[in-house]
Amino acid sequence: MKRIITISRECGSGGRTIGRKLAQKLGYAFYDRELIDRVSKESGLAKEFIEEQGEHITGSLLFNIATNMSYATHVFGGNLLPIQDQLYVVQSDIIKDIAQKELCVIVGRCADYILADRDDCLHVFIRAEMADKSRRAVEDYHFEPENVEKALRKRDKARANHYKYYTDQEWGDIKNYDIVLNSTAFGIDGCVELLAALAKK
Amino acid sequence: MKRIITISRECGSGGRTIGRKLAQKLGYAFYDRELIDRVSKESGLAKEFIEEQGEHITGSLLFNIATNMSYATHVFGGNLLPIQDQLYVVQSDIIKDIAQKELCVIVGRCADYILADRDDCLHVFIRAEMADKSRRAVEDYHFEPENVEKALRKRDKARANHYKYYTDQEWGDIKNYDIVLNSTAFGIDGCVELLAALAKK
Repeated sequence: MKRIITISRECGSGGRTIGRKLAQKLGYAFYDRELIDRVSKESGLAKEFIEEQGEHITGSLLFNIATNMSYATHVFGGNLLPIQDQLYVVQSDIIKDIAQKELCVIVGRCADYILADRDDCLHVFIRAEMADKSRRAVEDYHFEPENVEKALRKRDKARANHYKYYTDQEWGDIKNYDIVLNSTAFGIDGCVELLAALAKK
Repeated sequence: MKRIITISRECGSGGRTIGRKLAQKLGYAFYDRELIDRVSKESGLAKEFIEEQGEHITGSLLFNIATNMSYATHVFGGNLLPIQDQLYVVQSDIIKDIAQKELCVIVGRCADYILADRDDCLHVFIRAEMADKSRRAVEDYHFEPENVEKALRKRDKARANHYKYYTDQEWGDIKNYDIVLNSTAFGIDGCVELLAALAKK
């Protein structure tokens, strides 16, 4: 039996929904926004900041580092470790703590890397075809239809940058996951069913 | 139901065995060496040559092209298309023909790319952890234990070069497969069971 399931996902792939339904089906705790709440509580950082910065790096790293240095002096009272890095540390500690205590599904936030040493995890990556992702992004997340593909690629690029920066590995590289699924091929519920069966083994 | 299953695999991952067992379980035809026999029959090329050149590019492309040019004039009587390219064309035609006529599992040989337009295929990639691949390579395929990791990497690199040369895509990139499985995590029979269930849907 797998006690912990980490789900990484392309934007628009339905990976978050798969995670939520999978947690319901297995009776596991589900950590997505729930994780943000807890990080906010323990770090004192605003939820919006954590949501944006806890999983993405946009623009050049240099720009980010410059920005973070000035932020850091404000928020952490003179501690010069960039705030994004501090956030990563807090987030990692919370993820390790959750994994220690609960049966759970965790979406995003480098959880696959942070928990790579445990052998009771199932590490999942969900991808999908672009047409499918675009439709979902427009219908469910109100992306503008004109620029949806570009916006999705930009979002994934930011996730990949973040993952690379903190793990020194490639986001979406098969080496980092036990299973990679194309949700366009199997459908959301098909993926949930398949993963639930694997988790129970 | 999926009529055709293509299996790409890292060397030592057990992908070929998974393919064979999956074909047995589903009652599908299995094409691995069987494909080589047929290509040999239709092209007049030696089986050993097809086995080696039909899925690998070793060394620099320039060297290969130089070698092939001189080969080509011998084997194809003055036709100057490099022999590897002629082999690819023959192999592709046979794979398309098989897919048209039979329920089958096809291992390697860019079958995922060649059949990408069909919607009755399940495209699978099998990977495994290095320790597991090394053990299998030594025990089952008599690789030398001292150099096994290097030899496995070289073999995969040659497959990746071949795939890149003929498809202009990256071998092992998640975009090219419906499902990627880590056989170390699920075991050979676990992978077979999972894929059989997916193929029947």
